[in-house]
Amino acid sequence: MESFFKVRKPQEVLAMLDRFGPCGEETLHLDDAFRRVLSRDLVSPEDLPGFCRATMDGYAVRAKDTFGASEGLPAFFQVTGEIRMGEIPRRSVGQGEAMRISTGGMLPGGADGVVMIEYCQPLDSETIEVSRTISPLENVIQPGDDIQKGSLVLPVGHRLRPQDLGVLAGLGFEQVPVFREPKVAIISTGDEVVPVEADPKAGQVRDINRYTLGAFCRANGAIPVFKGICPDNFERLKSLVEEGLEKADVLWLSGGSSVGTRDLTLAVFKTFDDFELMVHGISISPGKPTIIARIGGKPVVGLPGHVASALIVAEVFMAPLLANLSGAKEIDGPHGRRVMARLSRNIESKSGREDYIRVRLEREKGELKAEPLFGKSGLISPLVEGNGMVKVDVNTEGLYEGDLVEALLFR
Amino acid sequence: MESFFKVRKPQEVLAMLDRFGPCGEETLHLDDAFRRVLSRDLVSPEDLPGFCRATMDGYAVRAKDTFGASEGLPAFFQVTGEIRMGEIPRRSVGQGEAMRISTGGMLPGGADGVVMIEYCQPLDSETIEVSRTISPLENVIQPGDDIQKGSLVLPVGHRLRPQDLGVLAGLGFEQVPVFREPKVAIISTGDEVVPVEADPKAGQVRDINRYTLGAFCRANGAIPVFKGICPDNFERLKSLVEEGLEKADVLWLSGGSSVGTRDLTLAVFKTFDDFELMVHGISISPGKPTIIARIGGKPVVGLPGHVASALIVAEVFMAPLLANLSGAKEIDGPHGRRVMARLSRNIESKSGREDYIRVRLEREKGELKAEPLFGKSGLISPLVEGNGMVKVDVNTEGLYEGDLVEALLFR
Repeated sequence: MESFFKVRKPQEVLAMLDRFGPCGEETLHLDDAFRRVLSRDLVSPEDLPGFCRATMDGYAVRAKDTFGASEGLPAFFQVTGEIRMGEIPRRSVGQGEAMRISTGGMLPGGADGVVMIEYCQPLDSETIEVSRTISPLENVIQPGDDIQKGSLVLPVGHRLRPQDLGVLAGLGFEQVPVFREPKVAIISTGDEVVPVEADPKAGQVRDINRYTLGAFCRANGAIPVFKGICPDNFERLKSLVEEGLEKADVLWLSGGSSVGTRDLTLAVFKTFDDFELMVHGISISPGKPTIIARIGGKPVVGLPGHVASALIVAEVFMAPLLANLSGAKEIDGPHGRRVMARLSRNIESKSGREDYIRVRLEREKGELKAEPLFGKSGLISPLVEGNGMVKVDVNTEGLYEGDLVEALLFR
Repeated sequence: MESFFKVRKPQEVLAMLDRFGPCGEETLHLDDAFRRVLSRDLVSPEDLPGFCRATMDGYAVRAKDTFGASEGLPAFFQVTGEIRMGEIPRRSVGQGEAMRISTGGMLPGGADGVVMIEYCQPLDSETIEVSRTISPLENVIQPGDDIQKGSLVLPVGHRLRPQDLGVLAGLGFEQVPVFREPKVAIISTGDEVVPVEADPKAGQVRDINRYTLGAFCRANGAIPVFKGICPDNFERLKSLVEEGLEKADVLWLSGGSSVGTRDLTLAVFKTFDDFELMVHGISISPGKPTIIARIGGKPVVGLPGHVASALIVAEVFMAPLLANLSGAKEIDGPHGRRVMARLSRNIESKSGREDYIRVRLEREKGELKAEPLFGKSGLISPLVEGNGMVKVDVNTEGLYEGDLVEALLFR
């Protein structure tokens, strides 16, 4: 077995992954752009609103005509009509005049404010009594008040949320430029691995990683390209890696819980001319035996074989890598999936590495409680019981019951 | 204008929405089941692992042969072979014998533990020195240690995450029973609304809600069915509502910022024989003028016209409704999207209603800071600047700078 001769600290690994950039651009209709990442700054082509609008139901008036009006001393207005939604008002408002207007309606000429319906009392069909003074522009938004023509609406690298799509629709962006979703070639390796539909013999296990890593890609805005299961065979693995690199932007090879596979992975990577080894081991647990290299400018990654380790390496390093390949400025949307939680038990850890402990997060009296899930190494059920993980920093020897810790939520 | 005669408290509304259940079942391949909701309890058809497996690289031995071994007084073992991955070991381990084994390999007969490679020193090609005592079953998992045959793997109502799919693959579930995704008919109403591709005239605005609500559906595991824009016309709206109810499981009609549209919505709903009005106004702000009814067992909802109000009503009430229609036990996955944050400014509120304030959440010294986004009513840009919202409870008159508050993260 080759020992890990380029063991890196997590921060170093993350810095290296920043070398990789977005995969390309495409243009999509708004209907297809949810969760996609903008590839350009979007600048507003027009003012929003485009005209002076009421923000309340009421009467459009000249504000100064209400000055001094109060419940004890109301002002009287002559109602000269009603403004229809979506139409330009047919007349202007003069001194002492008012027009009925609904929220979103266009203000008539002459008017510079809206008195809310609550403060208007009809006296007869043509007269209202106004019991409140309004200031100019009250209950009104003017052209550009919301978004000004020429201003930056959303920046490159922003992942589009429902409200972003709405605002873009409001500004007339029917199509938007976005980065292409990265394609991830996924290969599961190991002589013991059989497909889900197989009936495993003693000694064999079904391919768990394909499904876990495939869905992980989808959760991170990437497209999995499954290349199947590869036995521990040099030629077969080499040809699968070649195929994967042709069809995808990044290649994940998982497996190699056995020593033979680990060595094989690296041996195969090394046969490529433009191979550059970046990381051979990371000082985290679980997940140390991770290999990250570059072939022809594309990242190729050897993930640990055990699904728990593979998923933690994916959360910690592959999510940022996919964000880089997607052009996304933020990995998990604007807020991240990091929450503060109160630890329910002590966690021991070895200094010199980052430890990731699976936890079960539960809400208790308005606070999140993190219950560490211990158990024999090699189990997969804690991943299903758990809904997040807590990091124990490299220079910490453990965390204590009652500590407020940061947890990364699983998806 | 009809006044709101069935104004309900938010908790009452949520309780009413619990009357609606899942839309139906279907069976999907694991590749298509990410984020879908299980429609049945899944019980394990077999033990996992199915055989006794090593969880470390090392040597399989009889544990008792190591008793007393230490660095000062190592035990000697005869190496009788290597266990190949995926295969049944060809021979058993006898007293004083050891077989080389990799993580995931099948334990040979006779062996009941694995000594980690680090504690094994080869002396010659057939002999190793072991410097550590192991206990029986150390570094080994036995059949069913992870998941027992007949045990509940995942319950009905669980939304499938990457690791869940992995575990299901490990147990041989190639297909899984899930609830159908609810279909949501979406209609935007109002004489002033024009499609995104139109060049709005003065007084007109583009359809913002279609895109916001459509993506909101997708974010909540539902399928939007767009029925287009409807002017304030009784017959036209009635026929669109009929069509929508035929094709979808729930109908959302947004618009009615104008008084006329609000009345029209209710008038149209009332023409259906099996119409039952559930909610006519909710004591929240924004979002009060919300109508929820039931036609032929399907929920029909009149959402506010302004996108900010519509999105908040969607987050607070429509997400739980879609969870009910999806059969999901948890609205936002296992953890929710609720985080604790420190308020950066005072928020005033009227007692007697729940207020939802848009906030910008930012991480500051390991804590989330929530900056309230105030501004004129009727603006949409705060939705884009914001990434969450804070609730001010019905009996609270406000929140103070420095308060630790719960924020709901936008998607």
